[in-house]
Amino acid sequence: MSNELPLSKEQILDTAEQVLRRFGPDKTSVLDVARALQVSHGTLYRHFSSKASLREAVTDRWLTRSIAEPLADIANGTDGSYSVRLRLWLQTLIGCKRTYASDDPEMFAMYAAVTESAAEIIEAHLDHLIGQITTIIEGGIRAGEFKALEPRETARAIFLAFLHFHHPAHFRQWTNERIDADFDAVWRLLLGGITSVPSH
Amino acid sequence: MSNELPLSKEQILDTAEQVLRRFGPDKTSVLDVARALQVSHGTLYRHFSSKASLREAVTDRWLTRSIAEPLADIANGTDGSYSVRLRLWLQTLIGCKRTYASDDPEMFAMYAAVTESAAEIIEAHLDHLIGQITTIIEGGIRAGEFKALEPRETARAIFLAFLHFHHPAHFRQWTNERIDADFDAVWRLLLGGITSVPSH
Repeated sequence: MSNELPLSKEQILDTAEQVLRRFGPDKTSVLDVARALQVSHGTLYRHFSSKASLREAVTDRWLTRSIAEPLADIANGTDGSYSVRLRLWLQTLIGCKRTYASDDPEMFAMYAAVTESAAEIIEAHLDHLIGQITTIIEGGIRAGEFKALEPRETARAIFLAFLHFHHPAHFRQWTNERIDADFDAVWRLLLGGITSVPSH
Repeated sequence: MSNELPLSKEQILDTAEQVLRRFGPDKTSVLDVARALQVSHGTLYRHFSSKASLREAVTDRWLTRSIAEPLADIANGTDGSYSVRLRLWLQTLIGCKRTYASDDPEMFAMYAAVTESAAEIIEAHLDHLIGQITTIIEGGIRAGEFKALEPRETARAIFLAFLHFHHPAHFRQWTNERIDADFDAVWRLLLGGITSVPSH
């Protein structure tokens, strides 16, 4: 197999994602991906030693591209007040999850499975997202719009308080007719908890 | 089988719970429960027409006895301020769930499965619990301790904001070392959102 061209990680992940979508995560083996790439099992094995590691790498890339990167633009943006930005950030996170749950069910199912099994990848993803909320909270505190809260701890609490709307375990509730009213109710509660009270 | 004594629903559920604990929910059939009760399959079938309905009835009774009833005493109690009562109510809910997850894993697994499949039972249970939070919120508003919130909507938002700590889908997180710090952070956020601001 000395005539094989070197494979980039991105090429492998592109093909792995296609194969995983076609066959489903349970039925896709490392060998299937090697075949689709027209390389030997051994070549691919040097990059990914198991089905699980292949699935996790594809999910990790998907989480970064489809969730974390679009949200970073909002967290680092300058439009509107900090509470407007925080609400938009949460709604975008939730909107992305809902869209993927309905329009990309294969990828969503794989992400839901990885959420259960690959704690490290998910922890890193959550830390990254909570870091983005922290940026918004810090800005709001500096601007006097939010109370003098502990930013990172508050960001984590906000992320957890909205779990119903973005954690894949609850996706069946996302088509419930009162999901938007529920979001508004939790949002109002949160906003009351973080907004600074005008001094007299 | 005319010599069979009439069976009460409670007797059936007591025996069904024992059998389900012994064999596990997946392996227990209506016939197993009939055998343990020493009645014919047909007799039991008049009460429960499927494995699923038997499991749901046992879970429903368990939810009422183990969760809803102990919490009602707190919601209807008169000790402490309303925010102290609300915190105690949430901590008791969460404490019950954690205890059952570790000490009664068979029943907890059955409850987690029913949560996924039997929407009506779970909805009724949630409505009941949210009604208890509503009672506390209404008291706190009357006493001037809480803002003039819409009580039921606020109660639902509080229940949802603490999902991470009480929904069975998240039970793996309950042994995480920072779970109590996370609870405190969400609690502080919530308390800031509901507590009335002293007027000047």
